[in-house]
Amino acid sequence: MSETPASSVFKEAAALDAADGLAAKRAEFDLDDTVVYLDGNSLGAPPRGVAGRLADVVGREWGRLGIRSWEESGWWTAPERVGDRIGRLVGAAPGQVVVGDSTSVNVFKAVVAAIRMTRGAGEGEAPLRDEVLVDAATFPTDGYIARSAARMTGCRIRAVAAADMAREAGPRTAVALVNHVDYRTGRLHDLPGTTAALRAAGAHTVWDVCHSAGALPVRLDADGADFAVGCTYKYLNGGPGAPAFLYVRRALQDRFDSPLPGWNSHADPFAMDPAYAPAGGAVRGRVGTPEILSLLALDAALGVWDGVDLVAVRAKSLALTDFFLRCVEAYVPEGRVASVTPEAHAERGSQVSLRYGSGAGEVMAELIRRGVVGDHRRPDVLRFGFTPLYTRFADAERAARVLGEVIGAREGARR
Amino acid sequence: MSETPASSVFKEAAALDAADGLAAKRAEFDLDDTVVYLDGNSLGAPPRGVAGRLADVVGREWGRLGIRSWEESGWWTAPERVGDRIGRLVGAAPGQVVVGDSTSVNVFKAVVAAIRMTRGAGEGEAPLRDEVLVDAATFPTDGYIARSAARMTGCRIRAVAAADMAREAGPRTAVALVNHVDYRTGRLHDLPGTTAALRAAGAHTVWDVCHSAGALPVRLDADGADFAVGCTYKYLNGGPGAPAFLYVRRALQDRFDSPLPGWNSHADPFAMDPAYAPAGGAVRGRVGTPEILSLLALDAALGVWDGVDLVAVRAKSLALTDFFLRCVEAYVPEGRVASVTPEAHAERGSQVSLRYGSGAGEVMAELIRRGVVGDHRRPDVLRFGFTPLYTRFADAERAARVLGEVIGAREGARR
Repeated sequence: MSETPASSVFKEAAALDAADGLAAKRAEFDLDDTVVYLDGNSLGAPPRGVAGRLADVVGREWGRLGIRSWEESGWWTAPERVGDRIGRLVGAAPGQVVVGDSTSVNVFKAVVAAIRMTRGAGEGEAPLRDEVLVDAATFPTDGYIARSAARMTGCRIRAVAAADMAREAGPRTAVALVNHVDYRTGRLHDLPGTTAALRAAGAHTVWDVCHSAGALPVRLDADGADFAVGCTYKYLNGGPGAPAFLYVRRALQDRFDSPLPGWNSHADPFAMDPAYAPAGGAVRGRVGTPEILSLLALDAALGVWDGVDLVAVRAKSLALTDFFLRCVEAYVPEGRVASVTPEAHAERGSQVSLRYGSGAGEVMAELIRRGVVGDHRRPDVLRFGFTPLYTRFADAERAARVLGEVIGAREGARR
Repeated sequence: MSETPASSVFKEAAALDAADGLAAKRAEFDLDDTVVYLDGNSLGAPPRGVAGRLADVVGREWGRLGIRSWEESGWWTAPERVGDRIGRLVGAAPGQVVVGDSTSVNVFKAVVAAIRMTRGAGEGEAPLRDEVLVDAATFPTDGYIARSAARMTGCRIRAVAAADMAREAGPRTAVALVNHVDYRTGRLHDLPGTTAALRAAGAHTVWDVCHSAGALPVRLDADGADFAVGCTYKYLNGGPGAPAFLYVRRALQDRFDSPLPGWNSHADPFAMDPAYAPAGGAVRGRVGTPEILSLLALDAALGVWDGVDLVAVRAKSLALTDFFLRCVEAYVPEGRVASVTPEAHAERGSQVSLRYGSGAGEVMAELIRRGVVGDHRRPDVLRFGFTPLYTRFADAERAARVLGEVIGAREGARR
């Protein structure tokens, strides 16, 4: 019997899974084994440790210790403590990452603070640089919020392709807001190169690492990033709407002038001082009382990263997306889908986005009915996220196989 | 045997509890019966429904349905749905309250939006009114945030006693930010009167109802409030750091121009449109992805309010605080403590704050060691919160008795 491309990838998946050094990690997640879950880039799966931790937080910490838990259970310092755990995953030494609020709110803090760093000392002074560059393909909320930040600081905004930021930055550029990985195409942008070029132009950068944190090695310190924001409910598996994080490079912290100086960022919050005096360090990025249940669920979820090497995660991620693309080739009738995710490893995040003529929404709905969960980004993108801690090569194979079946069935029905 | 004041209040507590129409509500909370918990004005006790609901959200909604829960489990619309549940408790008809973010972040939205309502149509135009009045005794974060809002909109800020707002508002006043109940003294301010006076002066009001929501009948619609913000972890028992809420009066919603226009407030968020177009109604107050675990814990916690009449809550609250003051008189040696909470019912929230010479922090620490949990507000305030859904008259009696013992012991030791 001759080997078909399909039978070949089917056998190969089993071999790849058998050789996978991260395979045991899957058991740490609560997953439905009847489903192929390729939407961890939108909502990561629950680590098994979360449910028990939340039960303890509600029953004992809240129910028994009550208000004392702010101190005795470490609730008050959790934003920084959990921030440092995330810091390890995004290449940030302790004391530079704080968890809390949404990504949108953190974009606002970072962009306004970056603009203010270009001002003179006086409060009323106009910024010396009044241009904000925004990634033209950004996840929309970053653009909306950057526009608001610009409006409120007397700046103007200009949309520029991430790859062109270095060239477009000029003497009036205060800050560039760039997505590390494009949410739609999965393109990975050049963080160190863009940061260095912007710095040479006298501007700061704010990186949105929502689609890279936990998916690949992010090296904020080593690559000289100024600010970064990211969410924790994708590759970090923190739970639906888990709080976002803010990174402010240590050298900039003393000049970080937050537009949201809530009492949690005060140097002595319980003095209840009518005058504001900012805390030092990452704490300055806090605003109001953190949503403890969501925050401690995230804390528990981060346990799956203990002992995990992001370099191994990256290697498996690339192997998974390479393999998925080969499976698509093997299973999907030629010419029906086209990958919009870059071939080159250096330009690829941890997802594969396939363009499908018309009816992409229906195709994804049918995939989900058949137990393959990805998502649809209007108008024509089928998006598949690969989360190396729990996605198997067999999942990639099955997803491509079912995709081929669904597309084949649509074409059969049309004839 | 003659009746002493102490033996009298001890007996009276039992009679009052026996006659309490809300007494059965206590069983709906997970409370430690060995402790008198009078800190529900800082962190409400856990309603019993929360733990089970969270387990279901993590295990089934997140674990099994995953990303589909945004639609199928109603996650996406939870901020408005839970907002409407809170609306019922603060006198707001549906469609005006949205839950999410911290109180601080919501103060920022409301104050900036109120200032913008006084501008002309153009984006760059200066506000026609450029003064922000802030309650001089405000919980500090409101003041810090109002100052930032003023700074970012070219306004100046002026601290004014809540009772003087009506008199102090002038032709340049854009907005007044007032605490409905003073967090330190427990003084209840005149919401309808102040709102009407500010409106007559052409200014909007933002009410901080953190210490009144769930403690007494708040009538935002009937009293003509423009904006209100509040937290949900005090008398609403939503859990540590549970998300805050924002009320925008229906008539102002179309002019609500948010400084934090995140994608959740977009008219069509999943169109991923680079151009921002605000949604109508309460949704416009949203920003980023809501912290679902904290939000749904709050949702479950609100179940204890089903069938509860806030008028009965208020009656019990006043009876509790009246009774506690009498118990303090009976148990605490004369002249040692002085209530800073108003005598008059119309001016009292749901707490009693006692001033105690020097050593208030030590007294509260000792009270907590002896199972009476209140809190200390620097320098000299002992604060006791009364949450009518679960506080018993016997708790008030025991708290005053232990307070008398602790203060007596300190004086004995000093001799």
